[in-house]
This record gives sequence, C-alpha cells and structure tokens, in this order.
Amino acid sequence: MSRLSLILSRERAFGSYRPKAFDVSVPRRATVTPPLKGAGRSCQTGRSVRMELTDVGEGSRGVASLRDIWNKRKDDMRIIEHASEMQQQADKWRREGKRIAFVPTMGYLHAGHLTLMQAARQYGDVVIMSIFVNPAQFGPNEDFARYPRDIERDVRLASEVGVEAAFIPRVEEIYPSGFQTYVDVTDVTTPLCGRSRPGHFRGVTTVVAKLFNLVKPHTAVFGQKDYQQLVTIKRMVTDLNMDTEIVGHPIVRETDGLAMSSRNSYLDASQRRTALRLSRSLEAAQHLVEEGEQRSDIILERVRETLEAGDGLRVDYAELCHPETLEKAPKVNGPTLLALAAYVGSTRLIDNRLLLPKTLS
Amino acid sequence: MSRLSLILSRERAFGSYRPKAFDVSVPRRATVTPPLKGAGRSCQTGRSVRMELTDVGEGSRGVASLRDIWNKRKDDMRIIEHASEMQQQADKWRREGKRIAFVPTMGYLHAGHLTLMQAARQYGDVVIMSIFVNPAQFGPNEDFARYPRDIERDVRLASEVGVEAAFIPRVEEIYPSGFQTYVDVTDVTTPLCGRSRPGHFRGVTTVVAKLFNLVKPHTAVFGQKDYQQLVTIKRMVTDLNMDTEIVGHPIVRETDGLAMSSRNSYLDASQRRTALRLSRSLEAAQHLVEEGEQRSDIILERVRETLEAGDGLRVDYAELCHPETLEKAPKVNGPTLLALAAYVGSTRLIDNRLLLPKTLS
Repeated sequence: MSRLSLILSRERAFGSYRPKAFDVSVPRRATVTPPLKGAGRSCQTGRSVRMELTDVGEGSRGVASLRDIWNKRKDDMRIIEHASEMQQQADKWRREGKRIAFVPTMGYLHAGHLTLMQAARQYGDVVIMSIFVNPAQFGPNEDFARYPRDIERDVRLASEVGVEAAFIPRVEEIYPSGFQTYVDVTDVTTPLCGRSRPGHFRGVTTVVAKLFNLVKPHTAVFGQKDYQQLVTIKRMVTDLNMDTEIVGHPIVRETDGLAMSSRNSYLDASQRRTALRLSRSLEAAQHLVEEGEQRSDIILERVRETLEAGDGLRVDYAELCHPETLEKAPKVNGPTLLALAAYVGSTRLIDNRLLLPKTLS
Repeated sequence: MSRLSLILSRERAFGSYRPKAFDVSVPRRATVTPPLKGAGRSCQTGRSVRMELTDVGEGSRGVASLRDIWNKRKDDMRIIEHASEMQQQADKWRREGKRIAFVPTMGYLHAGHLTLMQAARQYGDVVIMSIFVNPAQFGPNEDFARYPRDIERDVRLASEVGVEAAFIPRVEEIYPSGFQTYVDVTDVTTPLCGRSRPGHFRGVTTVVAKLFNLVKPHTAVFGQKDYQQLVTIKRMVTDLNMDTEIVGHPIVRETDGLAMSSRNSYLDASQRRTALRLSRSLEAAQHLVEEGEQRSDIILERVRETLEAGDGLRVDYAELCHPETLEKAPKVNGPTLLALAAYVGSTRLIDNRLLLPKTLS
C-alpha cells in the first residue's frame, strides 16, 4: 500500500512555521489521502510543503503546491517552548476528555524513537514528544556538551510519524535559578548504571517528574534499551501515585544487531564493528540458557569472553538481575535480565536482554 | 444571626454512613435554611440526622426527623479511603471543569484547620480535606504513635464547614511494600526544624507530592504556623512544575495568643501557661523592631529572655531569617521571619511571626 508522508520544512528549529516549496515525486500508482486539492497551482502565501512518498513504485516526477493540505495539517505538529503553555494545553486536552500519550526524548531521533512515537499512538488521542537534553542526568565528566543535537531534523521526523506536539524547552525554563528539588528512587537505582553514573537516575527521575507534571500524560512510552531507567520510572510513578501508565517498548536494533542509540553517532567504522560484540554477547547468553545452563557465573563468563574477544572494548558491567528489583540473580531459572555497559573508545554503550530459560517440556 | 449546623452521626470512622435519629433542640428564634420539610415526621428509612443549632438563643426542645435535609446533603461529605478512588474522582472533577481546593491535615482538627477549610472555599468548587498521620515525617524518637487521633470527630467538624470529601487513607495504602521514592527539597529544609528533625521535610514533601497526585488540587491551603513547611512546599511545587497553587493562611491563635496545634492537647494546665511564652516573645520582638531595633542579636536576646523567663521551657531554636530563602538575617531591615521551636515538657511547639520594621515616615 502506498503511504503519503508530509514533511514540514521549517526555517527555525521552533517558532513560526516557514515552509518552502519543494519538488514532489508523485508516483503513478500512489493513492493520496486527502486528495491534493491544490496540486499544480502555485502557492500564494508561501505556505507550500515538501512531500515525500514512501513505499511506492516507480513514478513520474512533478511539482505540487500543497496549500490546502498545509492549511489542513499545519496545526498537526505544534512546537511548545514554555512550561506554562505546555501545562495549560495538557490541562485543556484532559478537560476535553482526550488521552495524552507521551514520548520524552533527548532528541537526535533515530528509528528507535520514531517507533516509540508510532507505538504511542495506540495509547492516546494526542501524541506528545519532548526534546530536552537534561544536564541533571549527566555527570561532570560525561558528554552533556557534545551530546548530538539536531532539533530541526527531529521536528521533521516526529511530524512525519504524526506527533501532535513537541515540547522543546530551554534549560533555564526547566531549571530556573533557585532550583533545589529532586526526586530520588533509592533501591533500583543502586546497581548497574547507578554505580557507574552517580546522580544520573536522580537527574532522570527529577526531569521526568517535571515533564509529567507539564505534559500530564495518561501514558508515557519508554524504550527498553534504558532498562534500568524504565524500571526506575515505573517505581517512581507507583510510589508517587502519578496518574500515568508507563509502557516499555522493545529495543529497536540496526539490521546487524546494534541497539539504536543517539550515541552510536560517536562511533567510527571500526568502533561500530567492535560495538556489535554487545548484542552478540546477549545472543550467546540466550543460546547458553536455551541449552539449559542456569549458573549465572558460567553465563557471565561467556558474555565477557564475547565482549572481550578483541581490543577496543572495556566492560563497565555485565550482570544478571531480577527484571523488577534489579537484584543480582545467582541463577537463571526464570526470566532474568542480562544488562551490559561497555566503553568503545570513549563512548559508553548499554544493551540488555531478558533471558528466557527453556521451558521444561 | 442563627446558624444551622448539620452533623452526620456515623457508626464507623469511615465507610458507609449509618446515621441515627437524635433529639434536636429547635430554638424559637432560629431561622432554618433550608426549611425543615421533614420535621416532626418520623424517618421511615432510618436516615435521620442529629442536628445541632449553634449561636442561637434559648429555645424549646423537640424531635425532628430530617430525611429531606439528609437526602439533600448526604453526599456533601464523602469519605474516600482508597488512592485509586481519590484519583479517579479528582480526575472526574477536573474533566467537569471543577476547581479543586485541598487542605491536607494529620487530623485531630482544631479551629486552625477549620479556618483553612473555610478559606479553601474561595479557591475551589469542591473542597477536599485529607487526614493522614504520615509516619515518614516523624523521627524514630518522635510522637508518631501517640499523635492524637479522632477521625470520627474530624469528619463531623469538616462536614460542618462544608468540606465535600475527606480522603482518609491507611498507611499501607500510601506506603505499600517496596516503596522507595522520595522528594527532597534541599536548601530551605536545612535550617530551623531541618536541623532538629532530620528527614522530617523529606517525609512532608514526599507525602504532599503523593497527595497532590491523588487529589489533583488547583489550590492547596497550608497554615503559616508550619512556616518552613509552607516555604518548602512552595519550592517543591515550583521546582517540579506541579499544577497547584499554594496558599498560606495566617496562624490561628487561642484568645490568649497560643498558636493552635493538635500537639497542644499534650500540655497540662501548667505547661499550657508556660507555652504562652512563645507568642509573647514574638510580640516582644515585634515591639522592639517597631521601636527601631534592627540588630538581630539584640532582638534574639530579648526573645530568649522572654522564652526562658521561668522553668519548664527549653529553647530548640530562635532565629531571624529571610522569609523565602530562610537564610539567617543579620539585620531586620525588611520583612523578616522570627521562627521559634521550644520544648515544654516533652512537647515540641513551634511558632513564628513575620517581623515588620517600622516604615520610615
């Protein structure tokens, strides 16, 4: 089936929309919905849009001015910069009986994020994305300053998957002068990344609590790649009685198995190959478990062997844990989380997999 | 003017209402609103209520069965025990466009609490009270176990001042097994009571965050007697972007000046007299300031002299602070908080006053 994607080109990352006209590839057999009423006419107000047609056969090329579609759809993707505006809009949606689904991100979107946004659709009448590179969750020697950013591209991509609004606040908007309140989840933040990144989860829970108070989501969707983050946020929501359902979405991987991450952009070609050892070691562990191995030390030995089969990778941790409490699992006799963190060059990558022992037949 | 108070008699502190018929004193000159339609008739369903007429002259006695009024008013005061029910009801009110005003308490209500509830009316279409003696804000050697409780009386009193619903959860409902999330406000919780009661404010902010997520108030009213608590909660609400306006209400005092507190019930007659030194020392300080004294050390010396004029009182702290940051004020050259804590016997009492220097004329 043909699918029409509408892409809004914008001069600034946020603020007023100023789309420009672009050539449009119009394939012969594409079914276009809604009909291109303005097609072929030039746009009088400068409000034309670029269109991309994906997943369609070969077709002729043409130019279309799409003012009608633009006018119909221009409010679909709204950019909100201010906390107060976000909160008022969220409150209005809630009063209108609309369900709000939310995908918080740090931007530099990849297919993993977009999958979360598409998944969010089933939970909400409106899907909200946020982009905020949260300084509070980066340690002093971590990559806050160089964390990759491309808001213009992010907005275009989110718009393509039908996100209704993007909340993109500035740091001063989220952490104004005098800020001194933190949300702490104690036990589940202690092991794994909690050991290597002191203060990280406090930064995460604090900003997520703030975002939830501003976006007022009925449902928020998080990726399972940040598994400990997901467990931590679930715990916070339960413990603080937040009126939000937390949904975890399976890890989205590149075709070769690498878990998608904005930080993959730091890797050069050689590091990119080295990084594959993470997903391979997860597979190796799952094979072992399927063969009947239950001893955590044996499984972790195989994982480390796989990770360290060559230079260029330094293991931060490789652990088997209870999937909810994150306590160390001495035996894999039920669903057990295998969680990894490793440095490839100076880039810290994480990955995980829920190991499922072979059921007794 | 005569005033009719309706009191619902209930067999249990919470759960279903089971009011019984009672004699009613009907004074000759009382104006009863709404009219007693059912007066004089016996109640067929057992749903009669006890009435009390306050602030009226001498009158004859009679019996009235007040089913009509009962039926009209029986939903006025709703008791909610479960977090999920509270949250769903709050969400429903918000969707209906109703404004929710909230007065969280630890129960054992006195006129100070009731004043807050009456004040809350101006901020909301529905006024919600909570009663929860929060273990998390008591230290291990504090008075959690013996903190005074009388939920039946509290419910009656709150009903009298027109509170729509009382949220009265059990401890296990608020802190279920596995609970591990805390809200911490750092700077403003450090001085004053923060020094004497480590962990106290963390307990307060955590439970208030939870209650706000359950009651979803547009406005919450707190007494200024717990001044540091008020400043802390305001800071939390700002920092975490909670969608609730915090209103501070002036201290309500007994006629002799003692700030109302549930803990006053611990005092015997002699201690009750000793306790008056707190409010007297605040007055003495205000007099000094009005005479032009600005030096904090001189003012605090007078305060301590007044507090320690006799046995039976041990000062915990007496400090002059900035009214928002709670940082020590070396000089009283603008509105300055005088905050006190003292032990009278084993009872810890607090009081405070905003000292206002004489304006230059």
